[in-house]
Amino acid sequence: MRGTVLYGPGDIRFEDRETPRIEQPTDAVIRIVATCVCGSDLWPYRGLQPVDAPTPMGHEYCGVVEEVGGAVRSVRPGQFVIGSFATSDNTCPHCLHGYQSSCMHREFISRAQAPVLRVPLADGTLVPTDGVPSDDLIPSLLTTSDVLGTGWFAADAANVKPGATVVVVGDGAVGLLGVLSARQMGAERIIAMSRHEARQKLARAFGATDIVSERGDDGVARIMEMTKGVGADSVLECVGTQQSMTQAIGATRRGGYVSYVGVPHGVELDGQSLFFAHVHLHGGPAPVRRYLPKLIELVLNRDIEPGRVFDLALPLEQVADGYRAMDERRAIKALLRP
Amino acid sequence: MRGTVLYGPGDIRFEDRETPRIEQPTDAVIRIVATCVCGSDLWPYRGLQPVDAPTPMGHEYCGVVEEVGGAVRSVRPGQFVIGSFATSDNTCPHCLHGYQSSCMHREFISRAQAPVLRVPLADGTLVPTDGVPSDDLIPSLLTTSDVLGTGWFAADAANVKPGATVVVVGDGAVGLLGVLSARQMGAERIIAMSRHEARQKLARAFGATDIVSERGDDGVARIMEMTKGVGADSVLECVGTQQSMTQAIGATRRGGYVSYVGVPHGVELDGQSLFFAHVHLHGGPAPVRRYLPKLIELVLNRDIEPGRVFDLALPLEQVADGYRAMDERRAIKALLRP
Repeated sequence: MRGTVLYGPGDIRFEDRETPRIEQPTDAVIRIVATCVCGSDLWPYRGLQPVDAPTPMGHEYCGVVEEVGGAVRSVRPGQFVIGSFATSDNTCPHCLHGYQSSCMHREFISRAQAPVLRVPLADGTLVPTDGVPSDDLIPSLLTTSDVLGTGWFAADAANVKPGATVVVVGDGAVGLLGVLSARQMGAERIIAMSRHEARQKLARAFGATDIVSERGDDGVARIMEMTKGVGADSVLECVGTQQSMTQAIGATRRGGYVSYVGVPHGVELDGQSLFFAHVHLHGGPAPVRRYLPKLIELVLNRDIEPGRVFDLALPLEQVADGYRAMDERRAIKALLRP
Repeated sequence: MRGTVLYGPGDIRFEDRETPRIEQPTDAVIRIVATCVCGSDLWPYRGLQPVDAPTPMGHEYCGVVEEVGGAVRSVRPGQFVIGSFATSDNTCPHCLHGYQSSCMHREFISRAQAPVLRVPLADGTLVPTDGVPSDDLIPSLLTTSDVLGTGWFAADAANVKPGATVVVVGDGAVGLLGVLSARQMGAERIIAMSRHEARQKLARAFGATDIVSERGDDGVARIMEMTKGVGADSVLECVGTQQSMTQAIGATRRGGYVSYVGVPHGVELDGQSLFFAHVHLHGGPAPVRRYLPKLIELVLNRDIEPGRVFDLALPLEQVADGYRAMDERRAIKALLRP
C-alpha cells in the first residue's frame, strides 16, 4: 500500500510502505474509511518540531475492521469503528479515572493517513457503531477520533457549566469544536477569538455569541471590557503558544478555569503570576476514549454536525495538498478518503 | 503603641508606631488578642524577597473590636472577631464565587503583629463569634485567620475526597494543617513528606498515615512505589519552591490534582511537561473568608485542634525571638500575645 510520510519541513510524500498486519493478539487491523490532517501535524510540517527521520503521519481515523488478534473480544471484522489517537487498555488505573490518553500502556497512533491501519489495544481503543453509518455522517464521525474529542475535553477541562461565560482562544478546528462543545454543555455566552471571516462564521454556526478579533493584551482588555472587569468563567486555550496561553489566563476570572489542549510549544508559566491569577489550570492529551460513546451518539442522532470543520476534501493520495492548504490557512481542516 | 517592623534581612524591631484609627467608614479597629509569625514572613526576613523600606509586619490576627466606622453593620465594639489576611467586601463577583482573597477591593493586612489593628472592609472581612471564646481556644481560633485556612484551601483546591490518597509536600505549619484538613475531608491515606521528627509526630497526630523523608526525585520515586506506579489523587504543595512544585506534580497521578498555596518564589513551569503530566493545577492566596465560619465552628466544637502548630508562645514584644526560632527551624510556629 501507499501511506503518508513526512521527510522534513514542507516535505510530505505518499509512498510505498508495508501494509500493516496483526502483530499482537490485542491488535486490530482496519481499512480506513476516512482520515484527515490535524493541526498538530503542522508543527513538524512547519519545522517547529524536529523531524529526525522519515515519519509516517496521521492519527485521526475511522474505518472497517479487517482482522483482529486472538485476544480481541469487543470488535470483530466487518464492524465500523472509531478510535482515539491514543491507544488505551481501558482497564488500568488512569483509564478507570477517565484519563485513557495517559493509559499505562498507551501508544500514540501515527500511521493513519493510509488505507490500512494497525490499532494496538483494540478492545480498549476502538468503539464500534451499530451497523455501517450513512456516508454523509462520516466526516462528523471522523471528528470524534480527535478534533471533536479534543474540543470537548477543552470545554470539560475548563469546567463549562450551564449559564457560563466562555472564551475560546484559537479558531482552528479544535477551537471551533470547543465552541460547539461549550454550547452543548449549556454555556450562555461564548466568545470566540478569531480574525478570519470563514472561521468566525463557522464559530457562530457552532454557537459563538460574540467574536473578538483582538489578540494578546488587546484581546485580554477586550474580554475584560465585555465581562465588566471580571473575566470569563471558562477559557479554552486551543493553540499551544506562549501568547495564547498568556491570553487565556489573562481573560479568566479569579477562581475560573483555563484548559489547554494543544501540545504547548515553547510555553513557560511563571509560578507567581499564575498564583495571583488564581485560576484552575488543566490540560493534556484529550482522553478521547472517555467521550467517544457519547460523541458518536450525538453525531448519529444528528444533534451536532462537527464535520463542518472540513472545508476541503481530497483523495488520500493528494494528502500533500491538504497539508499545504492548512499550512497556508486556506483550509480549516482537510478530509482524506482512500 | 509599639509594633513589629522589618528593616532588612534578620532585622525585626518592635518599635513605636502610630496607633491605628478609623480612616474609612467601612473600617474596624480591633485590639489584638493573639497574632503570630507566618512562614511567608520568613521570605523577606531571610532576604529572599526584597525589603525596600521599613515594613510593618503581621497578617494573622484575632481580637476584640474597639471601634467601627459609620458604615459597618455586621460587627460591633466588644465582639471577638477573626479575619482573613486579605480584606474583602464579600459582595463583588470574585467574592461571590468564593475567591474573597482576590476581592476587587482587596487589601493585604500587614500590620497585625501589634496590639491594635485597623481592618478595612470590616463587614466583609471579619467574622464575630458568639461571646468571647475560652482562652485555651485562642491559638486554634487564631489559625483560622490564615494558616489553617490556607491548609484547608490546599486540600480543597487539590480536590481531596473521601477515600483519596493524598500527599502533602512541606512540613511547615501550612503543610501540617493541610494534613489535618485532608483528614477532615475524609482522605484515606495521607502521606506527609517530612524529615523533622517533631513535625512528623504532629503530622501523625493530625492524621498522616505515612511519612516520607526523601525529597526531589527520590521523594517522587518513593510515592510512586507506595502507590504502585500510579501516583496520588491529590497533592498539596505547601512550600513554594521549584523543587517542591516539581516534586508535587511528579507525585500526582494522571488526571489528579495539585494545589499550591505558598507564594511561589522562582518557580517556572514548562508547558509541555505539565501537559503530559495531565494534572489539574490550582492555587493562589487562600480564600480564607470563604472557610472562616466553618473552621471557627470546628474549633469551637473542639472537633479539631489546629493550635497545636504553635510550639512557641511569646509576649508580642519578643517578636524578634519568634522570627529567629522559626528561621532556624527550632519552632514550627510562634504565637504572640500582646
